[in-house]
Amino acid sequence: MSESPLPIPTSAELSALTASELNELAARIRKRLIEVTSVNGGHLASSLGAVELILALHHVYDFPRDHLVFDVGHQAYAHKLITGRNEDFDTLRTYHGISGFPRREESPFDTHDAGHASDSLSIALGLALARDLNGSSEEVVAFIGDAALSGGMAFEALNQIGHLGINMTILLNDNEMSISRNVGALSLYLGKARMSRPYTALRNTVEGRVSRVGRVGRFLVGAGEAMKGSVKKLMIPGTFFEDMGIVSIGPIDGHSIEAVTEALRAARKAEGPVLIHAVTQKGRGFAPAEMRPEVFHGVSCYDPDTGAPNGKPVERPTFTSVFSQALLAEAERNERIVAITAAMTDGTGLGPFREAFGSRFFDVGIAEEHGTALAGGLALGGKLPVVAIYSTFLQRAFDQMVIDVALQKQHVVFCVDRAGLVGEDGSTHHGLFDLAYLRAIPNMRIIAPADGEQLKDALHTALGLEGGPVALRYPRGEAPVLPALPGEVPGGESEEDEVAARAPRVLPVGKAVELRAGADVALLAVGRMVSIALDVACLLAERGVEAAVYNMLWVKPVDETAIHRAAQAPLLVTLEEGTVTGGFGAAVLEVLAQESLDADTPRPRVLNIGVPDDFIGHGRVDQLFEELNLTPPQIAERVATAFEAPTK
Amino acid sequence: MSESPLPIPTSAELSALTASELNELAARIRKRLIEVTSVNGGHLASSLGAVELILALHHVYDFPRDHLVFDVGHQAYAHKLITGRNEDFDTLRTYHGISGFPRREESPFDTHDAGHASDSLSIALGLALARDLNGSSEEVVAFIGDAALSGGMAFEALNQIGHLGINMTILLNDNEMSISRNVGALSLYLGKARMSRPYTALRNTVEGRVSRVGRVGRFLVGAGEAMKGSVKKLMIPGTFFEDMGIVSIGPIDGHSIEAVTEALRAARKAEGPVLIHAVTQKGRGFAPAEMRPEVFHGVSCYDPDTGAPNGKPVERPTFTSVFSQALLAEAERNERIVAITAAMTDGTGLGPFREAFGSRFFDVGIAEEHGTALAGGLALGGKLPVVAIYSTFLQRAFDQMVIDVALQKQHVVFCVDRAGLVGEDGSTHHGLFDLAYLRAIPNMRIIAPADGEQLKDALHTALGLEGGPVALRYPRGEAPVLPALPGEVPGGESEEDEVAARAPRVLPVGKAVELRAGADVALLAVGRMVSIALDVACLLAERGVEAAVYNMLWVKPVDETAIHRAAQAPLLVTLEEGTVTGGFGAAVLEVLAQESLDADTPRPRVLNIGVPDDFIGHGRVDQLFEELNLTPPQIAERVATAFEAPTK
Repeated sequence: MSESPLPIPTSAELSALTASELNELAARIRKRLIEVTSVNGGHLASSLGAVELILALHHVYDFPRDHLVFDVGHQAYAHKLITGRNEDFDTLRTYHGISGFPRREESPFDTHDAGHASDSLSIALGLALARDLNGSSEEVVAFIGDAALSGGMAFEALNQIGHLGINMTILLNDNEMSISRNVGALSLYLGKARMSRPYTALRNTVEGRVSRVGRVGRFLVGAGEAMKGSVKKLMIPGTFFEDMGIVSIGPIDGHSIEAVTEALRAARKAEGPVLIHAVTQKGRGFAPAEMRPEVFHGVSCYDPDTGAPNGKPVERPTFTSVFSQALLAEAERNERIVAITAAMTDGTGLGPFREAFGSRFFDVGIAEEHGTALAGGLALGGKLPVVAIYSTFLQRAFDQMVIDVALQKQHVVFCVDRAGLVGEDGSTHHGLFDLAYLRAIPNMRIIAPADGEQLKDALHTALGLEGGPVALRYPRGEAPVLPALPGEVPGGESEEDEVAARAPRVLPVGKAVELRAGADVALLAVGRMVSIALDVACLLAERGVEAAVYNMLWVKPVDETAIHRAAQAPLLVTLEEGTVTGGFGAAVLEVLAQESLDADTPRPRVLNIGVPDDFIGHGRVDQLFEELNLTPPQIAERVATAFEAPTK
Repeated sequence: MSESPLPIPTSAELSALTASELNELAARIRKRLIEVTSVNGGHLASSLGAVELILALHHVYDFPRDHLVFDVGHQAYAHKLITGRNEDFDTLRTYHGISGFPRREESPFDTHDAGHASDSLSIALGLALARDLNGSSEEVVAFIGDAALSGGMAFEALNQIGHLGINMTILLNDNEMSISRNVGALSLYLGKARMSRPYTALRNTVEGRVSRVGRVGRFLVGAGEAMKGSVKKLMIPGTFFEDMGIVSIGPIDGHSIEAVTEALRAARKAEGPVLIHAVTQKGRGFAPAEMRPEVFHGVSCYDPDTGAPNGKPVERPTFTSVFSQALLAEAERNERIVAITAAMTDGTGLGPFREAFGSRFFDVGIAEEHGTALAGGLALGGKLPVVAIYSTFLQRAFDQMVIDVALQKQHVVFCVDRAGLVGEDGSTHHGLFDLAYLRAIPNMRIIAPADGEQLKDALHTALGLEGGPVALRYPRGEAPVLPALPGEVPGGESEEDEVAARAPRVLPVGKAVELRAGADVALLAVGRMVSIALDVACLLAERGVEAAVYNMLWVKPVDETAIHRAAQAPLLVTLEEGTVTGGFGAAVLEVLAQESLDADTPRPRVLNIGVPDDFIGHGRVDQLFEELNLTPPQIAERVATAFEAPTK
């Protein structure tokens, strides 16, 4: 990547380009996307599928005077390239480099910091309402995929958009799948809409170009047919959206810049809200991604010619893969277990469960709220639901966890994956708030395992713990291997099958484990911070400071006895991979406050270590740990400083 | 109410009743509803409108073997009367009495603890999926209003129900309004559906019975027409639901037990999901409620003959009414201000704003998620949005507050009404978690005013505080009148217009106010607990314990200087009307921990007082305070005990 990239025109220059120039540009952009993501990784398939849509948008509209609101935003790479970020695009997803999502601080063309699905319609409606109140005339376009459209809040927004009849355009990028295969009645409806237009020769050329698996490209609708005749002819009835008061155009071929341009111009001229149903192919233009779009949804580095993964093989099982295998084993033994995902079957490790127990597996689409309440209903019906959702997306279901699960004391196990710093996806994807929001929920129990063995035990424990919900929270990435817990037969090496081989055991509720003794400082850690705490203790020992280390395991109920014992040390340190505001550290402080009311209790000084009360950017996890002063040497320094302070 | 109520048959007996007996029973039930709610208050209008639907359900189905899932649940009074709760119904909404919502602990006929809108379809789908996995054959019916259907999670559930084609029945109770007048494209669609059937003579008899205002009853569709012919004839195309894969029956007259019975039987026979669109009239059978259903949505006691309110007049302005007037005054001065409600225009005090500034007012329907993201979009467009949502319902928008507002540093003011114990509505409606979940959000500022004057100042302050969101949280009910803050011209009496007359002032960010000095104990209070803390200090003084009292005002950023000063006392007490887990008390502990790292800082003992980590039932607010040991004498006792402990 040392030579300069091929030049790419800017948004303003696009209006002057001809169709063939735009098509040539699309090819150049695809080349650049593959060039960079093959090294940096990224959301390739979605971005490849959206190139023509994005070029047509910049061709027709006057951004950033007009507003373009991306939904989710991982499809926006082409948008970045034509808005001044071509030169820097080699830094995609790297620390202090270009974000993988629209970010307002990067460019005035990035309207909204996207990352969570289904919010673009609300944001765009807000912009359109503000425009009308201001009496100005800029255009507003929301760019949303078919999967994000199935999220409830998108429907809430459509409901108001149709009611108000406001001027705005919704560009629906229908690639027939979310990250997992798309589900839901709306998706079937869109399929029917795609079928309602006759196919053309284009379909065959598209289908013929690469050998395909599955349904990819099957429903691609020809531009020729759709574009013949007048604009009015474009407006075929789409009853679902028409019922909502929204004029619908299409389906059109989303890879025909001419077709999309014509549709956008029609929408611009129309009074009231218009939805353009554009059909695209995820991974378009890169055969490996066309064939396996789910693999190329989010990739690490790969061979730009063959698509073969280039990254070093994973050495140890990840938390996710341990969960995946452990759940499979549990589900073999207990047929009451059912599993729920919100469009993240593979990301959450539920693929093997789906294969083995299809009828007990439910992908609700991008619908964390419904998925959580559905779990409540399944539990009410005698099932034992396991809900696997990333920490950041589970925020969507906070109310449902409170009302539909915890209040009803339903035994539901939440497997909160990606809890902590996730790395390259950045601010919208880190899972930093779950300990704070889960802890506030009555009847909730929270376990934060520190390694794969503990995750396996934690899952087993949670599945046996009736009387309300249990949340397991674990981070993205490889699981450390820690010494076996007391009373445990050592699990041997880190091989996945050996992990599966040891029978899981029940963790005593609310019991911490002291991993190391030490009279000067007590380090109370949860999750991934436990192995860091062990390293910190070694570093402190080198400085003559003896630190005890506790693997607290349970954040709720937290081990009051262990805290009491730890509080004998003059300095108590809490360590968590999450916000310090109201999280695990606060749980320890609440116990210490309770203890303080007893006259004889020592009152140690307390240092709460965690992620500060701020949004955190993107980069490798180790870089972010460094930035946040969370590496073992940095923490050892902070602890030593605090320990030595009184003697100064 | 001392004599026994008229006998009411039980659910099991209903299947044997004839149509005319059921109609007679409906009248008896209405009499009982009016009899009890005229004394106890309650959700009268919705429950009156649902009587025939509920009788038909119990006539056709075999509950509780079959499952009936109410959405919201405030329409379920008739259900309670025929499931063994007629005798006790005089205790409706009273402490340890019958809840105003379905509650599982009350009866096996209450499937789900309802209260938050739009979750019934998810719960019912869960029950239906569990049934199919279990190989059993019970029927599942979800009972949902048209307003709740507009909530996003209901759409998410419909999307999966249609996709799966599962056997279940959705009884849509379309009374053409939510609590406020219904909004949204779906509501317009339902209106069109109502219009699509010819009217019959029944319409005229219904319309002629009482003098009406507005659209009430206008679209009532005759049972005669709908019921003629075969079951198949009932299945008229309802494109919206059909597009979702759900067969739709109706619209039918929801007050015709015969019509509803026939439709339910048809739905029962059908394969796959069926939606019955039943049109009802809110307030049905009680003229004052038919005429003003929004007034009789939730009522206090009233005259059972005339409907005139019987309660003692409110003596002081409520927090809500102070907010209502203060916002009006602010909006006069600043035209950037826009206001958003989620179907709670009157409850949140936004009625006057809507009257005065209609174009700047947005009722999004029961759609807190969209409403919050919409505020983000409006702020992005240069507006200054004020979002007024009850604490318990704002839980739905946690993720949108994080991602669409706080991450983007949008200046949005959240007016979190009903924050604290709300009284008679009980566990699903108390607002106990907001301090914990709001505090975890970076860039969020939180003010908890203690009286009306402070709320006015807090609103003024929040509207001027750029750079991110600000949340004001205040409870249901009358605002106490406290001594003026320092530097403030005393506002005089508690008259509402005098409150409006004093110019609001800017509260210094993160600054507490010491209301009373005292060396033994420091009481740090927020919100409604401030006036209680003043009473506690008086009671402690009588016992020879001198207590300082701080009105902390800001929960985030919390006043570190004040905490440092307060920490000079040997005992520090935090007081909040919310969960003690991760809330204001935890914020103080976090500061004290930080302070503790400085060797010279005293380390006081700390007593955190608030609502325990549990769900709280219903009853008058003063009864709940008593139950939770939160009255001034109880708190004084707790504080004195803690203060005296070390000397024992």
